[in-house]
Parts: sequence; structure tokens; C-alpha cells
Amino acid sequence: MSVLVAGTIAIDDIKTPTTAHKNLLGGSACYAAISASYFAPTVLQGIVGHDFPAEHVETLKKHGVDLSGVEHSDGKTFYWSGEYFDDLNTRETLDVQLNVIEDYHPKLDESVAKSKIVLLANMSPVTQMEVLQQCHADFIIADTMDLWINVTLEPLKALIEKIDLLILNDSEAKQLAGTNNLITAGNRLLEMGSKYVAIKKGEHGSMLFAKNHFFTCGAFPLHEVLDPTGAGDTFAGALAGYLAKSEGVVSFKDLCQGVVQGTVMASFVCEAFSTKMLHELDDAKIQARYDEFIRYTQVI
Amino acid sequence: MSVLVAGTIAIDDIKTPTTAHKNLLGGSACYAAISASYFAPTVLQGIVGHDFPAEHVETLKKHGVDLSGVEHSDGKTFYWSGEYFDDLNTRETLDVQLNVIEDYHPKLDESVAKSKIVLLANMSPVTQMEVLQQCHADFIIADTMDLWINVTLEPLKALIEKIDLLILNDSEAKQLAGTNNLITAGNRLLEMGSKYVAIKKGEHGSMLFAKNHFFTCGAFPLHEVLDPTGAGDTFAGALAGYLAKSEGVVSFKDLCQGVVQGTVMASFVCEAFSTKMLHELDDAKIQARYDEFIRYTQVI
Repeated sequence: MSVLVAGTIAIDDIKTPTTAHKNLLGGSACYAAISASYFAPTVLQGIVGHDFPAEHVETLKKHGVDLSGVEHSDGKTFYWSGEYFDDLNTRETLDVQLNVIEDYHPKLDESVAKSKIVLLANMSPVTQMEVLQQCHADFIIADTMDLWINVTLEPLKALIEKIDLLILNDSEAKQLAGTNNLITAGNRLLEMGSKYVAIKKGEHGSMLFAKNHFFTCGAFPLHEVLDPTGAGDTFAGALAGYLAKSEGVVSFKDLCQGVVQGTVMASFVCEAFSTKMLHELDDAKIQARYDEFIRYTQVI
Repeated sequence: MSVLVAGTIAIDDIKTPTTAHKNLLGGSACYAAISASYFAPTVLQGIVGHDFPAEHVETLKKHGVDLSGVEHSDGKTFYWSGEYFDDLNTRETLDVQLNVIEDYHPKLDESVAKSKIVLLANMSPVTQMEVLQQCHADFIIADTMDLWINVTLEPLKALIEKIDLLILNDSEAKQLAGTNNLITAGNRLLEMGSKYVAIKKGEHGSMLFAKNHFFTCGAFPLHEVLDPTGAGDTFAGALAGYLAKSEGVVSFKDLCQGVVQGTVMASFVCEAFSTKMLHELDDAKIQARYDEFIRYTQVI
């Protein structure tokens, strides 16, 4: 099965305590689509401006990402610039220019809309809903962030009612659920309508909630995080790709294994700047780290 | 095999945002010994004053804890009083009176010293070393805390060189290792001399380090934490008891299973005040939660 990844396509400038780079390939959908492409045929839906570098197009193509869902506009590409501090635990957005995504209303080709697994990578829940309404998916995943909880809460709630899996990080889960207990938060989010909820906790791993199921795993151990940008998108992309690779109805076990696969892929992306590490992977490297992670977490 | 638990025996007064109790059974060794007693014959080494309530003695006896290592003094029992704030994430010590532990130099009976698994529960590393030097143990575990890193760093370092497993929490691990990366911290602590290092992360679970091995697991999911006092001691006690139950040389696999057992027992103790929940357990309840935790963490 193929996976559709819809979200932002961006040009990023990123600073960390040790280094800085400009004009990087960024955006939630790019990280997620490249990550997903290691597991299943991947279609990308999004919009770019006239300034989107040809090398970034080549990069996506090299990963076999189907770009037939990428719309082009005369404006400028969505731009994000951020800086990391304090051993990369805090991030400050220096500049955001919405540009072409400001008035973006996705039009899905039939070939794109027929994907059975859909990942609505992080973007406005209004746009996520527009994609969702054009899809014929079996399983819909949506990622979100604090910005949308703050500025588009009602559209986000409406979206959550229509999806199968909501992905968000721990502070966002607490904020959206109105509690400091993450277990209570996960269960309250389930009551908002999505069948499953995944809470990402960075270096502390992640948790997966269903009505009568629960799963928790740690993060892959990293001695150094060089750039955590896109780690959450990469996690979501791998999870979506893994589900697309599996046959039949998505089970809780599939989701657990997808979370582990997401954990593994997210660990790679943190080890180098931007999407760099994602370009250096192959199936053997991914399998080796997956096996290593299994050894690190299984007691029976 | 039997396990020796040496540490503090205390009278605690505890306040939480919802309730307060006085004259509770407390101290690192009491939590740890009761926890260990569910897995193996447990001997307690420590000191009490003339005011130590008979009901606390009865409580320990009811759990089958061998009190032949408990020394008696004319002074007052070690006293601790603390208050929890902010959904129990921060704790303030209101009062500490060392009393009889101030000049305590443990004298181990031969029957106590012969235990093959020894847990040096949290107390001064100077006292921990005095116990260690009288033991003929196969495997020695030491728990510690920030206070000892701050005031008795050199004795703590000397102790770490002589033990098999060091247990401490995440902020203590970072402080002692001088790094904000927990993976680097774990490995640096191994270089200080103990064969294994376990880092406790509260609601985020724990990690176990060895030279060529690593293990990580989440915490047992709790909707509510009523009183986290003694959770770390309970974790260490269950781990020690589990090792004592196992036969032969301690393997990394044994330690992983012991960490899971510690995780399960620590989750129980958080659900009620003081040691209360530890008194209400039985093998079936412990096994049921262990099995539940295995389902929550295993993907293969």
C-alpha cells in the first residue's frame, strides 16, 4: 500500500550551539515523506514557491518520493528559521514566513487521494481537514503542535474527531487535555475522538494509547543530539510508512511496531543537521538499529 | 539466597497537596526491605531509637523481615518531614533530625553479613562503606542521592569503585557525571567503577547501563500519584530481592528483569501514602501487574 504525506514543504535556516546552516530542505512533510519512503511507496502533497531549490526536488526524487501532489505557486516557499539553546533542549523560532502556504487549499489528484494510509503532517488543522475530506483512506494519522492548540483549537478538535491516530508531544498533550498527568492526558485525548493517541517525549521515548491498550518505550540512546529539527515528523513518517507496508487492518501490535520504527528513524535524524542523516540510510542500517533497539527494550 | 538491606530506618511526617500524616514508618531501608521481602528472605540492618513505635516493628515482622540486624540506641529515631507541591513533582524537606544515625557505625552479625545480595539503601556513603567492608556478598547494590554528591563526594566515589550496581535518579546522574546527556552520564558513571548503573527517571521509567549492554523501559502508567515517598527505595529493594531469588551469577538479563520488577513495585508504592500499599500486596497482585507491564512494553 502507498502512504500519502501531506504537510508543509519549507526552506529552513537552523542554528545550534555548535553550527548554523541556511537554505535547508525543511517542512513537516519533507521529513515525514523521506522517512516513510524507506518503508512504502510515498506520495507527497504540499505547495512550493518559485524559489524552491531544484536540489531539494532532486533530493526528494532520489528517495523515490512521488511528487505528483506537489503544487507550485508564483509566491515564495514557506520559510522557517530557528535557533537551539541549552544542549538543544529549548528552541526559539527566529522567523516564520508563511508565504505560499498562507492561502493554500490543497487539491488532491485522484491518484494521490486513493492512498490507504494518510499522514497529515504538522500544519494548520484547517488545511489538514481539507486534505482529509478529499481522501479515501483506511487509516488517517494527524500530527499537530502547540501553535494550533493556541490559535485554531476548534478546527483541531473537529479534526481529531475524524482521525485514527493523533500524534503530539508531551507538553502539547498536557495542554490540550488540561492535566499534568500524561496518562490521564492520553486517555482524555482518546475521548476527543481519535481511536489512538501517540505522545512523544523526546529523550524519554513515547507512549501509545487506545481504549483498552497501552504501550510505552524509551528513546534510542544517543550520546549526542546535533539537530533535533524534524525528529517528530520523521517519527510520524516512519510510523505511517510502516503501517502502509503491513497488510490488512491496522492492529494495536502494528502500531506498537510502528512506534518503535518511528523511534529508530527519529534517532537517526537527530544525529546530523536537517535531513542529512536520512539521506545516508539504507534498509540494512535501519534494520540493524531496529534490532539493537529491540535488544535494549525487550526482557522476555 | 537472602538479601541484606542496610540503610535508614525513620519516622516520617509527610504532607501532600491533598493530605498529611505523622509518625509514618519511613527510611530507605524500610521501604526497600519490605519491597525485597516479596521476592526473597530479607535481613534489615539499621538503627532505631527508644521512640521507634512498636507498631512499625510489627509491620516489618509481618512482612517476614529479619530484624536481627536492627541495632537499638537510647537516642531518638532518625526523623524526616517533607512536603510535596505542584502535582507531586517537587518536594521540600521541612525538617531532618539525624538523631541516632549521626554516630551510627554498623556492626554486622555473621548471620547478617553472609547475605549474597546486599543493598546499601540510601544513606551516607561513609556508613554504606562500613557495611560493605563487613559483608561477604556476591553482588552489591548502592543507592544514593544529591545530598551525598554535594557533601560526601570523595567517600561516594570510593564506594562506587567497590560496588556492582549504582542506582540514582536522572538529575543526580547528570550532576555526578557532569553532563546533561543521560546516555553520556550513564557511561561516565560506569567509568567511575561500578559494573552496572541504573538511572531512575520517575514517570519516564529507567535505564540500565553496562559496558556493552543497555536497557530502557518506561514507568508503569499511573493516573494518579498519591505519595511518591520511597518509590526509589522500593524500586531498589525489589531489584535486590529479585536478584536474590535468581540462582547463579547475576546476568544482564537478570538485572533487566529486576529493573522491571522494581518498576512494578515502585508503581504500587506511589498509589497510597507512605508504605501503605506495600502492606496490601500479595504475589498474585505483583505478578498480575508484572504481566500487564510486559504487555505494555514488549513488541515481539
